[in-house]
Amino acid sequence: MSKAILFIIDGLGDLPTPKTPLQAAKLPNMDSLAKDGMTGLMSTISNGITPGSDVSHLQLFGYPPPQFYGGRGPLEALGMGFDLRPGDIALRANFATLEKGVITDRRAGRLSTDEARQLEGALNLKIGDVEFIFRSSTEHRGVLVLRGPSLSPAVSDTDSHHEGASVACLPVDDMPESAHTADLLNQYLKRINGILDSHTLNKTRSKSGKKPANMLLLRGAGVHIQIPTMLQMFGISAACIAGGALYKGVARYVGMDIINVKGATGTFETDLKAKAKAVEEALKLHDFVFLHVKACDSAGHDGDFKKKTAMLERIDKELIPVLKDTGAYLIITGDHSTPCVRKAHSGHEVPILIYGKNERADSVAKFDEVSCMQGGLGHINGSDIMPLLLNLIEKNGMYGS
Amino acid sequence: MSKAILFIIDGLGDLPTPKTPLQAAKLPNMDSLAKDGMTGLMSTISNGITPGSDVSHLQLFGYPPPQFYGGRGPLEALGMGFDLRPGDIALRANFATLEKGVITDRRAGRLSTDEARQLEGALNLKIGDVEFIFRSSTEHRGVLVLRGPSLSPAVSDTDSHHEGASVACLPVDDMPESAHTADLLNQYLKRINGILDSHTLNKTRSKSGKKPANMLLLRGAGVHIQIPTMLQMFGISAACIAGGALYKGVARYVGMDIINVKGATGTFETDLKAKAKAVEEALKLHDFVFLHVKACDSAGHDGDFKKKTAMLERIDKELIPVLKDTGAYLIITGDHSTPCVRKAHSGHEVPILIYGKNERADSVAKFDEVSCMQGGLGHINGSDIMPLLLNLIEKNGMYGS
Repeated sequence: MSKAILFIIDGLGDLPTPKTPLQAAKLPNMDSLAKDGMTGLMSTISNGITPGSDVSHLQLFGYPPPQFYGGRGPLEALGMGFDLRPGDIALRANFATLEKGVITDRRAGRLSTDEARQLEGALNLKIGDVEFIFRSSTEHRGVLVLRGPSLSPAVSDTDSHHEGASVACLPVDDMPESAHTADLLNQYLKRINGILDSHTLNKTRSKSGKKPANMLLLRGAGVHIQIPTMLQMFGISAACIAGGALYKGVARYVGMDIINVKGATGTFETDLKAKAKAVEEALKLHDFVFLHVKACDSAGHDGDFKKKTAMLERIDKELIPVLKDTGAYLIITGDHSTPCVRKAHSGHEVPILIYGKNERADSVAKFDEVSCMQGGLGHINGSDIMPLLLNLIEKNGMYGS
Repeated sequence: MSKAILFIIDGLGDLPTPKTPLQAAKLPNMDSLAKDGMTGLMSTISNGITPGSDVSHLQLFGYPPPQFYGGRGPLEALGMGFDLRPGDIALRANFATLEKGVITDRRAGRLSTDEARQLEGALNLKIGDVEFIFRSSTEHRGVLVLRGPSLSPAVSDTDSHHEGASVACLPVDDMPESAHTADLLNQYLKRINGILDSHTLNKTRSKSGKKPANMLLLRGAGVHIQIPTMLQMFGISAACIAGGALYKGVARYVGMDIINVKGATGTFETDLKAKAKAVEEALKLHDFVFLHVKACDSAGHDGDFKKKTAMLERIDKELIPVLKDTGAYLIITGDHSTPCVRKAHSGHEVPILIYGKNERADSVAKFDEVSCMQGGLGHINGSDIMPLLLNLIEKNGMYGS
């Protein structure tokens, strides 16, 4: 039975300065796949639209964001392994330092992962009939989940993204649930500020001249909803191999099995060989494997052309040959462009290639933004990915008879 | 006045092994049209979607299937010349052999067309206020039409597509009409089983050791609706030249004149010269001629690369020069791919070419799946065909003023 791999190189697309990282990198294995396969360009959402990674991955998995995207918070929570229930409100919640009513450090003096974990227990409260559950992840980062009746995700971020600001959560629509939720969050923040100020960890930090972690900055509120799994939507069993929590979260949201790989960190040091090995294993039990590598996007955000190029070369050397050898159909693309010259996501198309037994080949023999303009796939949309993939593995059924 | 021919080569598209039939065949006439015309690739429905022939032809004729497709049964009935009335429920109905409650032969021992015709009369019954009308076509095949009040097409197939299964029709939604229709069909099947068991033809067959044709297997239930004709929709008079009943049925459904051509069989032996002659004649009285050749699709279903290639070469030699000489605008394409290596329809694009006086030409000089990737039409959709065709013959009117 045919299997398929969707390999997303996060932030893959770039702009020429005068070459793009894909053009500058030596990628003999990807170029060979391009030569023997079909290429093209893809707008994840539509021409010129810059997507976040959450929205773009939903789109690529065949879940139109207008229907299925409910905010980033729940996806981060799911990715951390949190067992969300339908109706739970989840927010990203980062430790910060509040002094005299204003934020003086948005990362609480680079709090360590271990320290954050020590504070975790003190942050689980109940206010009225609403439970507040905090879970820390790495360094100052974590998620806050609200569970109870009459809640709404329509509340503002409290993170103003600069120091010197005060902290307040406001409703962003006129529904009474939103005002109620914002009010509860403000009560919660006030209470935990007191609790954290008197926490022994913060007293220890103060003694050594470190800023206290005495506040949470909130953003990305969303409500968790139950949606059909990929098995229900498309009739395929799916697995996710990714380092970053968000990608695992989106994958878990759409019902993929999450395969945790030792050494898959979502960073430049991620163990690509371990991920490749995990793909081989996952294909034994699944029709479809989603493989994600983050570091090219991070390099784009840092404006680090050399690092992006080097990561592409590592991928080409350590991952691509193994993926090819699996015999599965391969779709390689990005979720969006992250041009180094912009240090941010952009709405430029990403190159895409499709490779597999008996599939058509075009005349393109290099995998980059410019070569793929001539590709036989033409210009496609992120919403085409799942139909194309299901067609490859003959799981698309027939429309009509 | 300008005329146009839409020539659909059923199942035209294929996959390379290592060439596609279109690449392997010698097609000097089609290649010459490609050289002097415009080419491209077409997804009938959208990228990766595999259409059935019924749905794809509706789409190509400018009738979006979500709005106009009501199931295959009515289209087959129309194609057989049955005068359906709005509200009639039609199903494909094939003779089979039922023994001890299970199907032991899905084709009733390859019943002949003549034998089936002898059984036809015995199968027209009335149950309550619903008429059951059976019409046989070729060999074991036929259609069953239900005419009466409170009927629904939302009933299951009774054909499980394998021997050893029992026969039962079930409603597929919760409407009372669906349960009523399924119940009536089950009563009907029980009654005709008794009638056919005691039919003299089956007694004769039994004596010579042949399986009795004592059951009908049902599939593709649909309701007939009256829709606007092509003349009403697009202001053009249209004719159909096809061998297969389904294609005539879709054409009749959209109000085309059906031109029956002696020797047009929908098989490899179809008389292409007779069809070409009929196109010439039809153009005298119609703005638009739909020409259909089936055999390439059948070869794809059989996995017979040589036969598909040979049929393409016959088409090139016997049909194309005549079509070109008519002076009509020509659109040549397929309704979907039927790759020999898959023995089934697939969602891969089909090549398309447009040729006619003063029309633009691109640099493509070969008509195949790979050459047409570079075509000047780019990647189009089945829904583009009618607007493009109406534009060729200047019958598209103007949007705005």
